[in-house]
Amino acid sequence: MKDFNIAILGCGTVGGGVAKILTEMAGELHTRASRRIQLKKIVELKPPDAIKRFNLPADLFCGGGKEISKEEANKFIQEILNSGSIDLVVETIGGSSDFVENLALSICHSKKHLVTANKALLAERGSSIYEAAKLNNVSIGYEAAVCGAIPVIKTIKESFTGDTIESVSGIMNGTSNYILTMMQKEGMDFDQALKLAQENGYAEADPTLDINGHDAGHKLAILIRLAFGTEIAMKDLSITGIQNIKKEDVDFAREIDSTLKLICYARKTDGKIYATVCPMVVKNSNFLSDVNGATNAVRFINKYSGRHILVGEGAGSSQTASSIVADIIFIARYSDILSKEENESLRNYEITNAEYFELPYIITFETEDTPGITGLVTTCIGRQNINIDTVSHNRHKTDRAIFSVATMPSTLKQIHAAIAEINNSNPKMLLGKPKIMPILY
Amino acid sequence: MKDFNIAILGCGTVGGGVAKILTEMAGELHTRASRRIQLKKIVELKPPDAIKRFNLPADLFCGGGKEISKEEANKFIQEILNSGSIDLVVETIGGSSDFVENLALSICHSKKHLVTANKALLAERGSSIYEAAKLNNVSIGYEAAVCGAIPVIKTIKESFTGDTIESVSGIMNGTSNYILTMMQKEGMDFDQALKLAQENGYAEADPTLDINGHDAGHKLAILIRLAFGTEIAMKDLSITGIQNIKKEDVDFAREIDSTLKLICYARKTDGKIYATVCPMVVKNSNFLSDVNGATNAVRFINKYSGRHILVGEGAGSSQTASSIVADIIFIARYSDILSKEENESLRNYEITNAEYFELPYIITFETEDTPGITGLVTTCIGRQNINIDTVSHNRHKTDRAIFSVATMPSTLKQIHAAIAEINNSNPKMLLGKPKIMPILY
Repeated sequence: MKDFNIAILGCGTVGGGVAKILTEMAGELHTRASRRIQLKKIVELKPPDAIKRFNLPADLFCGGGKEISKEEANKFIQEILNSGSIDLVVETIGGSSDFVENLALSICHSKKHLVTANKALLAERGSSIYEAAKLNNVSIGYEAAVCGAIPVIKTIKESFTGDTIESVSGIMNGTSNYILTMMQKEGMDFDQALKLAQENGYAEADPTLDINGHDAGHKLAILIRLAFGTEIAMKDLSITGIQNIKKEDVDFAREIDSTLKLICYARKTDGKIYATVCPMVVKNSNFLSDVNGATNAVRFINKYSGRHILVGEGAGSSQTASSIVADIIFIARYSDILSKEENESLRNYEITNAEYFELPYIITFETEDTPGITGLVTTCIGRQNINIDTVSHNRHKTDRAIFSVATMPSTLKQIHAAIAEINNSNPKMLLGKPKIMPILY
Repeated sequence: MKDFNIAILGCGTVGGGVAKILTEMAGELHTRASRRIQLKKIVELKPPDAIKRFNLPADLFCGGGKEISKEEANKFIQEILNSGSIDLVVETIGGSSDFVENLALSICHSKKHLVTANKALLAERGSSIYEAAKLNNVSIGYEAAVCGAIPVIKTIKESFTGDTIESVSGIMNGTSNYILTMMQKEGMDFDQALKLAQENGYAEADPTLDINGHDAGHKLAILIRLAFGTEIAMKDLSITGIQNIKKEDVDFAREIDSTLKLICYARKTDGKIYATVCPMVVKNSNFLSDVNGATNAVRFINKYSGRHILVGEGAGSSQTASSIVADIIFIARYSDILSKEENESLRNYEITNAEYFELPYIITFETEDTPGITGLVTTCIGRQNINIDTVSHNRHKTDRAIFSVATMPSTLKQIHAAIAEINNSNPKMLLGKPKIMPILY
């Protein structure tokens, strides 16, 4: 079978890792793909860094290994797109700019397969790209876009084909999980934990997308499309990050035999999709409670095969790169068939507004410590047809009582109505806004 | 694309589950495979039970749904093998008899793809069957043979292709794990836990293969072939079951912040394979320590992508069946390519004898409770060049001392030599044979 020729655009942490594996494992990859996998070209603005870091030959780089301008880079990219000898392009530039979207579209339109780790691009602008790939009979590999090394995409596409996925949940952002783990295990507050994450390379200088939940949201949107066959716009996905989590929230979770985690959660019930990214109180009997540090984990509940959990490294150079190389091998093996195969049509399931999710919740009230309060709060909750699981008075600070109500599955709409009624009955009783977090059993 | 036609041989727990999914999900499977997946024939000695249990139409069964004799069954099987319209045969008869081996070979020689959950057959007699499949350009699907619903086979074959597997370990027998979990969590002794496992359907009336470690050994042998590309004869695999585990062993593991588990373990180091199935003291910081009941889990350490853990249901009708159906879909999609692809040649790595494994071990000594014993034991261990990690006096029973030595990585040969020397120095000192178990960090 003829050689399968690769170009890499962007040779940073991930792209460089791909080049390294393609070089180091060339013989083995040849056997696995039943054809030679040839890395032909790399386009990178600053090759010297990459050459040194990943021990790559300079002549792989367009421009011979010297720094190049953006204009030169664009010229080299055009040459690659026009070349009849390149079969697959790895896009490891990142970001969801017009430039990167147009690049992905051009790769497809030039009849080259595309492999990318770009979750933002696929979650925010994926539909045009999937469409272009279909139109041009090329494949898109994006295993690396969701949870780095964990083979979650291929598991859905190739292993859960004899089943129906009912829910997918997980810990999909290593930075947030590292911060929450440090808050829980080392007693740090949020700022200390974030600082440590940055020092240890688990958080970027600008950690916004990680801690506000949007990075995790991108991954969940991609999984929803695959698992349920429906597209969800980022604006329709309810996302709450960990930026407002206090040490006392983490401590409280521990007191009730649980661990606070940033959870991606989606399920399909009666043809409707429920999806959210938010901090949840995960019971310690749930495996996800024990996934610590920068590790990621994805949990499926399937109709026939029950519960599955996949745990692994969600980021890192060689970790993410190994997923990209696996996509390359898969496409090299099966491209003739893959291009004809992507015909699973999308369905438009209704995306349920976050107010109407049915989940068990924990509501934490801070009130004045006077008799009668528990009665009022639980009465108002009961009047909204919410069944109460447990009521616990957790901690007392001077003259304030903090107590939590764990509910049976109910909606935020019901809970908000109950809180409004409490405030109406006794406007001064609640000190601050109650905290509401789902419980994951 | 033309229909893909299936026959099922044996409609018990697993075969019936396959028939059920193929029937219930027909429309969805058609879309996923890009062709219609048609269940054409089932051969089963006692159809009435299966028809009722799995809600199947009687006319799918050869013989119209009535009980048939073995001779009639053989005649129907021959018709299926001779039929040009059957593309794939699911073998869910089980066992590693000559009959089943010959059946598997005949399926391949009649140019039909084979899907099976038969771990004993593949582990003990696999090479002739893989060979026959290669010769006849057909595929063998055996996802269901290793840990039921967990997609471990496809993960190795299609997702870890951009990486090198360095070790594979796991909990691969639900019966043993259920028994050990009950001993640990409910304080039962072995016989009580086994009885409960049988009552709850987690152990067969004859649980021998489950508790003596051979069922787990079959699975490990299949994984070694895939992960390291080398065949291991069952006789070369060191296997110790849980039949001699006492409640005190389980209690002791808990005392040192660990959990006793029946572990399958294989790694490749310097071109040699180390493999064993035996009870291990799993540190509670290792995820496997928290895999309880009948759940299975497989852990990989890969060169580039680091640690992966896959957790799921290791047995059950619909769970195992869903893996078989996924294999059917995969073969229906990719058969044209798969038949040309299985050219990864096996290598003959040396299988290291269990005496020469390098692992950290816990050695538990029962001795007379007199001064000087610790010195003698640790001196003899040190003389064998074994580094000691910790020495702990665990429990004292009347006049006896029980103490444990945790070693740094060392071999059983060294440990056995140390014990011999202790016995030579003071023949009456050790009361009974010391227990030796690897530690899994």
